[in-house]
Amino acid sequence: MLQAALAGGTASRRAVFELFPRRLPEGRRYGVVAGVGRMLDALDDFRFGDAEVDFLRREQVVDEATLEWLAAYRFGGDVFGYPEGEVYFPYSPLLIVEASFAEAVLLETLLLSIYNHDSAIASAASRMTWAAGDRPCIEMGSRRTHEEAAVACARAAYVAGFASTSNLEARRRHGVPSAGTSAHSFTLLHDTERDAFRAQVSSLGRGTTLLVDTYDIAEAVRAAVEVAGPELGAVRLDSGDLGLVASQVREQLDALGATRTRIVATSDLDEHAIAALRAAPVDGYGVGTELVTGSGHPTCGFVYKLVARAGADGTMVDVAKKSKDKISVGGRKHALRRLDEAGVAEAEVIGIGTPPEGDANDRPLLVPLVAAGEIVGREPLTQARERHLRSREELPIKARRLQRGGPAIPTVHQ
Amino acid sequence: MLQAALAGGTASRRAVFELFPRRLPEGRRYGVVAGVGRMLDALDDFRFGDAEVDFLRREQVVDEATLEWLAAYRFGGDVFGYPEGEVYFPYSPLLIVEASFAEAVLLETLLLSIYNHDSAIASAASRMTWAAGDRPCIEMGSRRTHEEAAVACARAAYVAGFASTSNLEARRRHGVPSAGTSAHSFTLLHDTERDAFRAQVSSLGRGTTLLVDTYDIAEAVRAAVEVAGPELGAVRLDSGDLGLVASQVREQLDALGATRTRIVATSDLDEHAIAALRAAPVDGYGVGTELVTGSGHPTCGFVYKLVARAGADGTMVDVAKKSKDKISVGGRKHALRRLDEAGVAEAEVIGIGTPPEGDANDRPLLVPLVAAGEIVGREPLTQARERHLRSREELPIKARRLQRGGPAIPTVHQ
Repeated sequence: MLQAALAGGTASRRAVFELFPRRLPEGRRYGVVAGVGRMLDALDDFRFGDAEVDFLRREQVVDEATLEWLAAYRFGGDVFGYPEGEVYFPYSPLLIVEASFAEAVLLETLLLSIYNHDSAIASAASRMTWAAGDRPCIEMGSRRTHEEAAVACARAAYVAGFASTSNLEARRRHGVPSAGTSAHSFTLLHDTERDAFRAQVSSLGRGTTLLVDTYDIAEAVRAAVEVAGPELGAVRLDSGDLGLVASQVREQLDALGATRTRIVATSDLDEHAIAALRAAPVDGYGVGTELVTGSGHPTCGFVYKLVARAGADGTMVDVAKKSKDKISVGGRKHALRRLDEAGVAEAEVIGIGTPPEGDANDRPLLVPLVAAGEIVGREPLTQARERHLRSREELPIKARRLQRGGPAIPTVHQ
Repeated sequence: MLQAALAGGTASRRAVFELFPRRLPEGRRYGVVAGVGRMLDALDDFRFGDAEVDFLRREQVVDEATLEWLAAYRFGGDVFGYPEGEVYFPYSPLLIVEASFAEAVLLETLLLSIYNHDSAIASAASRMTWAAGDRPCIEMGSRRTHEEAAVACARAAYVAGFASTSNLEARRRHGVPSAGTSAHSFTLLHDTERDAFRAQVSSLGRGTTLLVDTYDIAEAVRAAVEVAGPELGAVRLDSGDLGLVASQVREQLDALGATRTRIVATSDLDEHAIAALRAAPVDGYGVGTELVTGSGHPTCGFVYKLVARAGADGTMVDVAKKSKDKISVGGRKHALRRLDEAGVAEAEVIGIGTPPEGDANDRPLLVPLVAAGEIVGREPLTQARERHLRSREELPIKARRLQRGGPAIPTVHQ
């Protein structure tokens, strides 16, 4: 595409691309934007170095003119977008990229990969943390997804309210708080379970979390409190009927005087399992597989479409594909969230060409992320996390329902 | 765990870890091992450098003794495993890691991440290529998954029979053949569809693939053949009832003399959609979202468990967790595929402690991958691809059924 556009003289036409969802995953009430910070870092680094250019030349993938263009490539356009942590709905214009066609088209896979992945994880994570209420959720899914995706998952989960992750690289790279427990292999390594508990407590202190379901749970809880004393930080349960077992363990811990020892539950938890444990004496949830696979929706289905471009005379023209089953809306978009007097979200309002009219309650949604190639939208990750909690609180009560349903608010094109 | 084991003196105990699936994804008949080559490269590179060690020290994640151990870490043990492309069944011992506990436990997340991801993709891809028969499948899903996972997806799909990928980085890194078409944005960039076709054909030649569903398909096909002549390589259809549209387009192409112009279909294809297009005149399938999300099963659920370790006196002891709902089998495993006289697979036979007895038809499944820390299992990717096709052909006919069912052959512990 790039080679043909360069050769044909259309590569330099001004273009507006839009990244947006055609729909939410079936049954979901809202989605969560994540990956913005990762995207800005990736965009800043997006170059074609010698290794890439030599490869393309050697394999004759593109012609010499294209190679030269790629070697000099640096994105010099503007990007506007929903800030990280914001919620979204069908047709929310999550990113607006304004640049030459060549500069903008080259970003398609990069932008979509990051947004489709990270937002899918954050969208699932948000339902989990909402269901968990005040109880912390710990991200533990690294082993169930690609090794690099795992780091991005921990980051996206944190944006959507997770308290911590077992992925230390996510702490190193992104500052996500980390937490961990031991595995069954640690218990099995020792001649007795009690030996394992002793070794862990002696090295990590009484505040550690002991895994108590390798053999017999009641025996393990007794041994754990004997070894660590009632100051034992937590016990972890990873199998069985978690609600029932948690109640028994709570009773046993209390009887042993370990009234402040917490119970952490893990084992294929999703938002529904977390909600089902509401009445159980569980103090925290370790979530793995269902988090990193987006709880049934591992990708968002965002698309990246050309919505306007200059004609031969330089005038901008709105464009859109015309096929019946995949609708796109041409034109440069603007967006605001309409709020009622009480501050509750009522609609996602999208203006085509000009900003939609709003009143004092309404919130504009697009912010500048890149200006003439300069990254201007960086922010601390905690800011995205706080924004998410605020945006979610603004939604009507039905957004919180885990049952299948439509978007919590309608999308209105103005 | 590592710190406590080092402090407690158990870190150096000889250990055997096993990576295995407890089950296949619901309804699936077989799984496909992928990621072996990536894992070997990752293992070779697996070090704790200054950046990591300094971070762990600064944040006081582990004590000084552990930091020293990590800084000197190099895996020095043995690894045996199913070679890449091989099919697998519940409890197939896909990897056997023999080393000190400390050396082996540290690999858990690395090994599981790569295997859980890559094998999930290959397992889905294999069903797609089997359903497609002689028609090539093109991997086009990069934009629907994490940017690094995308490269691994293209590689895993190739192992499982895909012909090519649109991910150029997978070609650069792994030698996967690449292919591409243009997007709707390329057509929309031009003042007319015909201008777009002219630009593409003039730059890429008549053998290129033109996208014909941006506006009216019949008009686009007419314009495409007018511009490129009957030597036009292919047209791509990306919307509508693909079977019906393909028939109409085939008729039109033939009437225009473009009898050898191929039709490539894309648009949320999975193995079922591919099978449903068997009777349609489609010459190739572009597969995106459903491939990179494992067609409903984005992770394999492999686990990594300690199955044997030395006791205080150095004697090896088989170990296994005892909880009721998550069964593990202790002991070092061996495995072979039992074949009947005609060479058809009959059972996955797993020996505990000693190799199972087999006859001349049977195939041992574990090969050495790492010997005393040296990588010995590297092979060209094409070899994995050929192995997969052979292993798949060996399966009983019911393995090919796309309908839900149990594993194609039983797993027998001997």
